[in-house]
Amino acid sequence: MTSTLILLRHGQSTWNAENLFTGWWDADLSELGRTEAAAAGRQMAEAGLRPGIVHTSLQTRAIRTANLALDEMGLLWVPVKRHWRLNERHYGDLTGRNKAQATAEFGEDQVKVWRRSYDTPPPPITDANEHNPNTDPRYAQVPGDVLPRSECLADVVDRMLPYWFDAIVPDLAHDATVLVAAHGNSLRALVKHLEGISDDAIAGLDIPTGVPLVYELDGDARPATTTTDVLDRALGDPEAIRAAADAVAKQATAGA
Amino acid sequence: MTSTLILLRHGQSTWNAENLFTGWWDADLSELGRTEAAAAGRQMAEAGLRPGIVHTSLQTRAIRTANLALDEMGLLWVPVKRHWRLNERHYGDLTGRNKAQATAEFGEDQVKVWRRSYDTPPPPITDANEHNPNTDPRYAQVPGDVLPRSECLADVVDRMLPYWFDAIVPDLAHDATVLVAAHGNSLRALVKHLEGISDDAIAGLDIPTGVPLVYELDGDARPATTTTDVLDRALGDPEAIRAAADAVAKQATAGA
Repeated sequence: MTSTLILLRHGQSTWNAENLFTGWWDADLSELGRTEAAAAGRQMAEAGLRPGIVHTSLQTRAIRTANLALDEMGLLWVPVKRHWRLNERHYGDLTGRNKAQATAEFGEDQVKVWRRSYDTPPPPITDANEHNPNTDPRYAQVPGDVLPRSECLADVVDRMLPYWFDAIVPDLAHDATVLVAAHGNSLRALVKHLEGISDDAIAGLDIPTGVPLVYELDGDARPATTTTDVLDRALGDPEAIRAAADAVAKQATAGA
Repeated sequence: MTSTLILLRHGQSTWNAENLFTGWWDADLSELGRTEAAAAGRQMAEAGLRPGIVHTSLQTRAIRTANLALDEMGLLWVPVKRHWRLNERHYGDLTGRNKAQATAEFGEDQVKVWRRSYDTPPPPITDANEHNPNTDPRYAQVPGDVLPRSECLADVVDRMLPYWFDAIVPDLAHDATVLVAAHGNSLRALVKHLEGISDDAIAGLDIPTGVPLVYELDGDARPATTTTDVLDRALGDPEAIRAAADAVAKQATAGA
């Protein structure tokens, strides 16, 4: 039995445009981000992909990306499940700061470690931070024991994988096509698992925005083929995608 | 224990505007219908209503109504469940005809019976009908035994109530606020049940479009108060709503 998994990272948000650490802050898509989402929907439709179920985070920019893409496909009616475990990495007390501010306050090396190291989270969010996202009613049902106050990528892997195994993998049964619309770091965590990428090598991986990544999975929810470049999974023109990915890598993509 | 139930009938669709029998055909909202949906969302927000869960039909016009309303409320993340049992009445082989065509073919009295009688369904949909909605992939999982080929309002009551009892009522536990975004006839069926309206009297009831109807329910999922006019449940200015309801009643609202 095989199934198809489509990963879609949301496009530009209003905070990406301002170069702010976003994380769990509920920044919405910018106009460009909306255009990217609709284009991804058209691309999936043209490729003959028809998701039978959709998973998103609890964050507006991923939900809206899914809605806009599904609308283009005539599939607004497809069942959708949403969970905080697919949220972006929690940026702790960096949330709401821009990169220049953070660099001035903590130094460039420290900020680089927080942005790209696998296992060093930023300082925890404080109640004094006016952009503390943890008080949002959407997280009211999340027990304090698991509600993150800051996360490194290793933390994201730990909290995302239970949702993969318990909620998404069961939906992959019966030759299904499953769409996951989420974020740079929750999708890096999932791709790390699927491709077997090491803790060291994952720092070099960026997920392109608005580009559907298509995995054919075997009965164990493992990729049927291997690759050393995740962009080989991308729908569309590989050269254009690589150029766009290079542009993203050069940007300060902290907010993701 | 009490809970709050909000019923929202979608606004104008592209087929309402053309005066066609719509039923299960997946006509989308018109621009006016989108405006109505967003306005309903603002109205609910201003009234301090915060749905914790949403139920819709499988039809785009109800789904989009919910999405637009929730977006206005900053609640796009709220869990949503969708089911064909909340769909509009199935108009059988009238689907896709306009009222003038139907009157010319079947006579005015017959068409009136199909439109307003409680228990006389129109002729069943045929494969020859180019607007047969039953072949849509969204209904592929509905067993042929229950997939309607035509419905009177009594049929809608019969197929809607199991979803009310089994899916919506359990969500009303824990003092919840539940939003149901659906259609003229699936909501008439639900209001008939909630208000205890007789088979004869229901013919006189129209649900206003784009106007949230708010029910406070007791622990038995029964209205905590009684009324002889469902518009007493409406959010907003009662006089304006009555005027709009009169306009709808005078229209040919067959498509709903």
